[in-house]
Amino acid sequence: MTKTQALELLLDKIKAGRALGMAGGVLQWDAQTTGVPEKSLGARGEAMGWLEGEMFRRLMSPDTLDAVEVLEAVCGELSVVERAMVREVGRRYRKLKAVPQDEYEKYSEMITQSMMVWETAREKRDYDMMLPYYEKIFEYQRRLCDWYGYENHPYDALLDDFDKGSTVALLDGFFSALREKVVPLFLEIVKQGKQPTEITGLFDIEKQRALMPWLAKFTGYDLSRGKVGEVEHPFCMSLSHNDVRITTKYHEDSLLSALYSTIHECGHAIYQQNMGEELYNHNLADGASCAMHESQSRLYENMICRSRAFAGQLLPKLREQFDYFNNWDEEMLYRAVNITRPSLIRIEADELTYSLHVMVRYELEKALISGDIKVKDLPDLWSDKYEEFIGIRPNDLADGVLQDCHWGYGLVGYFPSYAVGTAFGAQLLNSVKKVVDVDAAIKNDDLSPVTGWLKENVHKYGEVLLPDELLKQATGEVFNPNYYADYLREKFTDLYLK
Amino acid sequence: MTKTQALELLLDKIKAGRALGMAGGVLQWDAQTTGVPEKSLGARGEAMGWLEGEMFRRLMSPDTLDAVEVLEAVCGELSVVERAMVREVGRRYRKLKAVPQDEYEKYSEMITQSMMVWETAREKRDYDMMLPYYEKIFEYQRRLCDWYGYENHPYDALLDDFDKGSTVALLDGFFSALREKVVPLFLEIVKQGKQPTEITGLFDIEKQRALMPWLAKFTGYDLSRGKVGEVEHPFCMSLSHNDVRITTKYHEDSLLSALYSTIHECGHAIYQQNMGEELYNHNLADGASCAMHESQSRLYENMICRSRAFAGQLLPKLREQFDYFNNWDEEMLYRAVNITRPSLIRIEADELTYSLHVMVRYELEKALISGDIKVKDLPDLWSDKYEEFIGIRPNDLADGVLQDCHWGYGLVGYFPSYAVGTAFGAQLLNSVKKVVDVDAAIKNDDLSPVTGWLKENVHKYGEVLLPDELLKQATGEVFNPNYYADYLREKFTDLYLK
Repeated sequence: MTKTQALELLLDKIKAGRALGMAGGVLQWDAQTTGVPEKSLGARGEAMGWLEGEMFRRLMSPDTLDAVEVLEAVCGELSVVERAMVREVGRRYRKLKAVPQDEYEKYSEMITQSMMVWETAREKRDYDMMLPYYEKIFEYQRRLCDWYGYENHPYDALLDDFDKGSTVALLDGFFSALREKVVPLFLEIVKQGKQPTEITGLFDIEKQRALMPWLAKFTGYDLSRGKVGEVEHPFCMSLSHNDVRITTKYHEDSLLSALYSTIHECGHAIYQQNMGEELYNHNLADGASCAMHESQSRLYENMICRSRAFAGQLLPKLREQFDYFNNWDEEMLYRAVNITRPSLIRIEADELTYSLHVMVRYELEKALISGDIKVKDLPDLWSDKYEEFIGIRPNDLADGVLQDCHWGYGLVGYFPSYAVGTAFGAQLLNSVKKVVDVDAAIKNDDLSPVTGWLKENVHKYGEVLLPDELLKQATGEVFNPNYYADYLREKFTDLYLK
Repeated sequence: MTKTQALELLLDKIKAGRALGMAGGVLQWDAQTTGVPEKSLGARGEAMGWLEGEMFRRLMSPDTLDAVEVLEAVCGELSVVERAMVREVGRRYRKLKAVPQDEYEKYSEMITQSMMVWETAREKRDYDMMLPYYEKIFEYQRRLCDWYGYENHPYDALLDDFDKGSTVALLDGFFSALREKVVPLFLEIVKQGKQPTEITGLFDIEKQRALMPWLAKFTGYDLSRGKVGEVEHPFCMSLSHNDVRITTKYHEDSLLSALYSTIHECGHAIYQQNMGEELYNHNLADGASCAMHESQSRLYENMICRSRAFAGQLLPKLREQFDYFNNWDEEMLYRAVNITRPSLIRIEADELTYSLHVMVRYELEKALISGDIKVKDLPDLWSDKYEEFIGIRPNDLADGVLQDCHWGYGLVGYFPSYAVGTAFGAQLLNSVKKVVDVDAAIKNDDLSPVTGWLKENVHKYGEVLLPDELLKQATGEVFNPNYYADYLREKFTDLYLK
């Protein structure tokens, strides 16, 4: 195979993958946002399974590896984008190839079961029901570490799967910084016992909806290359560089829920929209890592849109829709969107405690993979960690160890991305602030200097750069968790302890 | 290849085709019904092209023919459904194979152009603009007849492509019956010059929409296995046996337009919903022919829902929404939904003249294929035919020869299906009436005896039976155009000449 043939072969496979991926995506979009006949599930599931299987078969056919090896041998002659494409295809191929086919199939079948059992187990608060599944899942994940290979800690192999280059050594450092700087701060806030006025009552959904075009425009999410749907569990879906969609779920009794989850999804969508067509054509149109993707959504959601400056922009928009805010001022609103308190549910957690919820999961996963703890002891260990970091114990398994779908879905090593991503965001924002007056941009209702910097330094690279390369190039230093810990300390000391 | 292997191979290809087809379908649905970003066209077009190409490549790979030949040799051992599957796969393979690949590709490229030029030509009323395309298209279609092969008239080869078994001999007989029985009747009605009260004015679209659930329920379109979207040009789309969708377009200034086009699409959808999963799994879930599909939509639209009995059911429903009908009675409504008059546009034509519009196109296509007329003379010939059959000449090319997209899209031989289908419908209804009191069913608001008969005798066979087999089995005789001609004569004589 010549270099040209090898490139053509990979680009052809990627073109097929793009079509199959768009097809699977739009089938999911259609099912989740437009309401489809309940009975249509069977045939649609079969079609989606076939499409996914076909992507897998095309990636895993032996000519893929041949082409990768041909191109690796001449990598000096390739463009930066081609080199990244070869690296990523090779990486996926070798990871998947490392897993024995029959083991993978048995595991997948078990996971299909486990996903359904988790729903019931959570509903019934029955940990014993889930126990055999968790045992099989963590047993498989431990073997997966060996199949993937690792240098130091076996958990490294799983972490790297979601966040290239992530390791226990790195995360231990990150979470210690949180434990030292954030946990005591939070417990101090709890002890002090004062809370600002909260936003309560019912907020008409039509009026909530009316805020969305402004919100999209403010963040820079381009609706001419996207669209918004409504679903039960919001997500962002990139069908192509010119079709990046987000979804929202409105709650009449929680104004902030849809507002901030929309901003979060806009953050993901802006990242995708700022990758050019070339990246889509080389299958590099994704975040540098899960954590880097999360860095953008959480940067917009929290660091930009839970700022004092943004409260000043948001208040008049809220007043246009809701008389409720007539007697509010900016400071009240700023404090209301930043209320922190002990809580049990990760996905509803506030900005200060969010990463502490993740830390619970990180420590448990790490200890499960190293064999230091047993799956059967998880419920108690979970509660102990919550008490230690967040000062509260769940008395209901559905608010405790059974709350997340991840483990039951076979996702181990994914949780840390949520927290590390937020910390990437803080480090990036620190660099943005050196060249852009972020508060002024917010007050001008024009985030383009911020988004412009992020586009040039983060978004436009997609998966071309590795996350650590990207962070180093964008901020001038490797990952440094202190930006995040210090950002939280400063913000919440000011809010609660002054 | 063993029989078992051959069957597995075809079923595997069909499974892939089902997933690829559903993917293409839902991409189209998403684009047409939900509003997608304008700029997303390019990437979506590429994906849809790939999905369609993949279906083609899988059908046309040589192992398809091998499997078909293996199974044809043992067809006595196959089930009825398997035999039909082999017949249809073989038929499609051989038709496509008969066309030289390079000719097909050149033609396809030209058609892509032609489709766009037709839009402009129609807008500008510029026949000369379209002339070179029509010339190339009919030239290709004449060669296509030779590639496909035929016994008597070359046009037979094209007719058979849309309606298996359809021939010039058969259609000449059909259209003579119309010319003898329907044309003089219609011209007599025109001459007589009286018209009933027409429905005029504006009708709130929200209120029109409110009629739809009743309409779906009345016809028997099962919304628990379907859904309704809104589009510019209504269609029915079958994604699976449990997901058969229809679309509607509401016009404030035309109450009857959405009403009857919805019933029409319900007719198509009921046909698809009444085919079992087995037919979907053998790629036989389609009408016995285009005409047979049209027979069902037009039977519901016209023969059932433009009946006196239906006017009695419709009037109270209209009154619930529109005060306009307070002073109407059933007879007035019956007459208003059956107004016939000379008209120029086929898709807006009334029940009596509809097939006459089709006859114009049939006679012109036949003469073009046989070489009796030239493409350049079409505009005048078109007008002459309209004058002869419908008593009116277009003075605008957009209302004349440039009105339909079909020829510009390369569809030659398709038009007759619309009229023949309606005639199939009349013949089938005649048989239904022998065992079911159709008017009583309508008056009971319960069409199930009618739909039940159609399901058992037409729908459930999908493509298993050939259209002539199906008609013979269902009605006890071969196609007999007199049922249709007599039905029209009786109905419109009663309406206009008594």
